[in-house]
Amino acid sequence: MQTLTPSLADTLAENLAETLRQRRQQLAERVPFPVMLWSGGDQPRNFPANVYPYRASSHFLYFAGLPLANAAIRLEAGRLTLFMDDATETEALWHGPSQTRQQVAEQIGADAAYPLAAQAAGLQGAAVLWAQMGAFQQMVALLRAQEVDLAQALAGKVADNLALAQAIVQLRMIQDEGAIAQLRQAAKVSIEAHQAGMAVTAQAQTEAQVRAAMEAVITANNMACAYGSIVTVHGEVLHNHHYHNPLQPGDLLLADVGAETETGWAADITRTWPVSGQFSSSQRDLYEIVLAAHDACIDQVKPGVEYRSLHLLACRTIAEGLVDLGILKGQPDSLVEQDAHALFFPHGVGHLLGLDVHDMEDLGDLAGYAAGRERSDRFGLSFLRLDRPLEAGMVVTIEPGFYQVPALLNQPERRRQYEDMVNWERLAQFADVRGIRIEDDVRVTAAGAEVLTAALPTAATAIEAQVHR
Amino acid sequence: MQTLTPSLADTLAENLAETLRQRRQQLAERVPFPVMLWSGGDQPRNFPANVYPYRASSHFLYFAGLPLANAAIRLEAGRLTLFMDDATETEALWHGPSQTRQQVAEQIGADAAYPLAAQAAGLQGAAVLWAQMGAFQQMVALLRAQEVDLAQALAGKVADNLALAQAIVQLRMIQDEGAIAQLRQAAKVSIEAHQAGMAVTAQAQTEAQVRAAMEAVITANNMACAYGSIVTVHGEVLHNHHYHNPLQPGDLLLADVGAETETGWAADITRTWPVSGQFSSSQRDLYEIVLAAHDACIDQVKPGVEYRSLHLLACRTIAEGLVDLGILKGQPDSLVEQDAHALFFPHGVGHLLGLDVHDMEDLGDLAGYAAGRERSDRFGLSFLRLDRPLEAGMVVTIEPGFYQVPALLNQPERRRQYEDMVNWERLAQFADVRGIRIEDDVRVTAAGAEVLTAALPTAATAIEAQVHR
Ligand SMILES: [Mn+2]
Ligand SMILES: [Mn+2]
Repeated sequence: MQTLTPSLADTLAENLAETLRQRRQQLAERVPFPVMLWSGGDQPRNFPANVYPYRASSHFLYFAGLPLANAAIRLEAGRLTLFMDDATETEALWHGPSQTRQQVAEQIGADAAYPLAAQAAGLQGAAVLWAQMGAFQQMVALLRAQEVDLAQALAGKVADNLALAQAIVQLRMIQDEGAIAQLRQAAKVSIEAHQAGMAVTAQAQTEAQVRAAMEAVITANNMACAYGSIVTVHGEVLHNHHYHNPLQPGDLLLADVGAETETGWAADITRTWPVSGQFSSSQRDLYEIVLAAHDACIDQVKPGVEYRSLHLLACRTIAEGLVDLGILKGQPDSLVEQDAHALFFPHGVGHLLGLDVHDMEDLGDLAGYAAGRERSDRFGLSFLRLDRPLEAGMVVTIEPGFYQVPALLNQPERRRQYEDMVNWERLAQFADVRGIRIEDDVRVTAAGAEVLTAALPTAATAIEAQVHR
Repeated sequence: MQTLTPSLADTLAENLAETLRQRRQQLAERVPFPVMLWSGGDQPRNFPANVYPYRASSHFLYFAGLPLANAAIRLEAGRLTLFMDDATETEALWHGPSQTRQQVAEQIGADAAYPLAAQAAGLQGAAVLWAQMGAFQQMVALLRAQEVDLAQALAGKVADNLALAQAIVQLRMIQDEGAIAQLRQAAKVSIEAHQAGMAVTAQAQTEAQVRAAMEAVITANNMACAYGSIVTVHGEVLHNHHYHNPLQPGDLLLADVGAETETGWAADITRTWPVSGQFSSSQRDLYEIVLAAHDACIDQVKPGVEYRSLHLLACRTIAEGLVDLGILKGQPDSLVEQDAHALFFPHGVGHLLGLDVHDMEDLGDLAGYAAGRERSDRFGLSFLRLDRPLEAGMVVTIEPGFYQVPALLNQPERRRQYEDMVNWERLAQFADVRGIRIEDDVRVTAAGAEVLTAALPTAATAIEAQVHR
């Protein structure tokens, strides 16, 4: 079982039970049936006893508050029932003292607490999430040793699934104070990680060395990486999880690195900086365009604004900038309608952020897309992960970018389609820009955007100063 | 798909195909039937697209050499057939260029290479490992999208399982030159990690900060942690994966941290050092006993020696030392026969090391225990992971320790049992020693032990010098 650092446990204890009580209350207002959620357990790496760092299910964490393993909770009419087993004598010998079921129950404000084997009864009449089937199957396997057949008890429960998922989306989408406090902690440590990355760049020879310095800040703070870090001079590889490239003086280094607190809340920050400490003029020109898109979107953030319109604003800002630089030819609005921007900005401007870095993506587009909306087939819109009106309390990322992806720019079909909209000779003058992205975490408030990651500068000169110091 | 750092790929390319050819040849001499092995694929963390760092199956890595994902190999009479799909256009867009099936086939010396869908035929008549069922199930799920039903093709194959597992154990247990080269690389980086940990201790406030400095060395070298690091001032918690404790001047810090190369080969090193840079006299007394056990075992390593006898040698050395210190009372041999040593040394003296940190533990005790042998019920022997005569080419750890585990020492039954063998008042004078372990990685050669991790000193004064520097 995972136990928390004592300092964090103390901090949480003050408010945790009350935070969880309010979440349960809000759930009870939305669903009339009981709900079962599972934490999941360790995942083997190369053999059963050698496991990956444990991560509890986000749905469980939202309502149970602590990264318990091999646990279940039942929520009904605002009541919380905890199911977990106390550590055996052998477990205590090898893993040290851990909190008892009773101690955990008090910490999270549970109304009742039982051994795991009792949950078969707790499952009667309860709704469950399809996305929790992995965690449920782990529980089934665990209880088989106790000769409890949980699979039987689940039969016929999946019908309530969608209503429950929709209710949980509504809750988790609006971040309460407890959530915001955690998101701020994740942001703070992630900012320090980026500062460390910039500071070490002058003496680093490889991407791996910069990554190591950044992740060391996260590890030193007893946090985990919220996702696989991207630290690369090939920012045009959008999901790049290699770190072997040498750093060359003319390179831009793109770092997309975020921390996750012990109770599971994420940050997601990208900065792009010149290895040499100074942007070339072509790099600076394109950096300023991405930054303009970033700032324009954040300026527009407020309740009621469609996130999709922010995406289109980013697209138009980038298209305008590229027209001004002579890379694109035509009217910005028309270029965006024809998805010409997507040659250079082929992803969405961001996503929900919370317990998951792409929050609730385990529920497909249920969280990302408002009821009745579906992903577009359009080249320039299909990768948009969020299409909803903003609401106060949402936390989203804003992360426009500019990339030269050879696989995209050299695709014969695209090349023909956009032949006349791109000045390819002019583009060739920007060959030292492979990828730029600027990403911040933004809380939607009635007064507009609150940038949780604002302490990390975005201005080109400020970035240069941090790399140089 | 995982691709290697270019430098490593170059190094490997020279010898990899030949190394793999020899491994296949040796397998063919032991099993008359074809064999299928799977790599496995990404494991989701909190949602499907947010995955843990990929680790290929060790059995696959041994015969395929590269950390491919979503791949299969068939081995038959020394021939290697590779099954993998080339990256799609979309994958290339998001993940960047990767090696083609044909390129990989050349690199690993495959005799033939086909798309994944072709493996249903390749599975005919082939033996598989039970321990690979997880990787196989992932492949089944992957191929379902291609409307290939692999589960059908597997029916009835599990019977050949034990003979295959035994053959693979025989092969993997004796580390060839390719393996040793990798194990040396893992050892080298792990040694640097421990040096970094010692060097940072003076300025660190928490366990987490020391852990961060150690793992940063591993990350900076493009390696992974071979297992969850233990970095703690509570060394008596044998499987301690928390890092929140503050470092106090009188504490001993126990660090069990090892790197794993990109192709999967592990190191496993433990050192214990004083936070202040100087052992107290009680700490030094007990440290010297553990070191004496460590050195005595390594001195005895040679082909033909029973590993179990090394374990008992460590037990007797520790018992002798504790009698000399006045902590245990009686004859050392008699104390060991009654498992009194196990009050303070409750684990085995080590294990096989290779692609897995506990090599081939996914096969249960098939690798660890010679045919016909079983784990003992004895308190002092039940945790022994290896009970075989040593053979030239084996790599094992030697890791004696001394711990004061409250859950063990205060257990009423044990307390009564050992009441007269322990001088509890004398023991109380060693309260500043909670846990000490000294662990090295040892290759068995005809000439005796070759300590792969010997560049990291074990002497108390040398340890003090490294913490102080
Ligand atoms: Mn993001
Ligand atoms: Mn070990």
